[in-house]
Amino acid sequence: MDSEYKKEDFLLLFGSRIDIIRRKKGYSYERIAQGCNIDGSDISKISKGRVNITLSSILELSKGLDIHPKELFDFEIEA
Amino acid sequence: MDSEYKKEDFLLLFGSRIDIIRRKKGYSYERIAQGCNIDGSDISKISKGRVNITLSSILELSKGLDIHPKELFDFEIEA
Repeated sequence: MDSEYKKEDFLLLFGSRIDIIRRKKGYSYERIAQGCNIDGSDISKISKGRVNITLSSILELSKGLDIHPKELFDFEIEA
Repeated sequence: MDSEYKKEDFLLLFGSRIDIIRRKKGYSYERIAQGCNIDGSDISKISKGRVNITLSSILELSKGLDIHPKELFDFEIEA
């Protein structure tokens, strides 16, 4: 893991991973929000890499997307 | 994903996953701390499931453990 890897880049990668999964499932932000306790506008901000969410929100997002949390981190990080 | 799955349980599972990886690598909390910007005592609290860390801390932990973040979530969650 490249120790210089920046927080902002990581949040953007995480956010775009959420969006890829969302589109694949054909879910709207509202549809995800119905399955968890995060509202649609916050989910939109998360998917744009603007929110440094916590473990509990990661759990909630995985419920809303009906997917295991580790899938949310299935993206490349330059080594 | 069982929507009733609780935050406390998830933090405990995440923490014990950190500890499993740490022991496998033979790292102390201090050794992990040297590779990232989280100090040893906080890493100890995280591995006991007592801290609801953020994405940026997840990135830091993955640097300290020299592992991809998705490996930190490689544990079973009762469906």
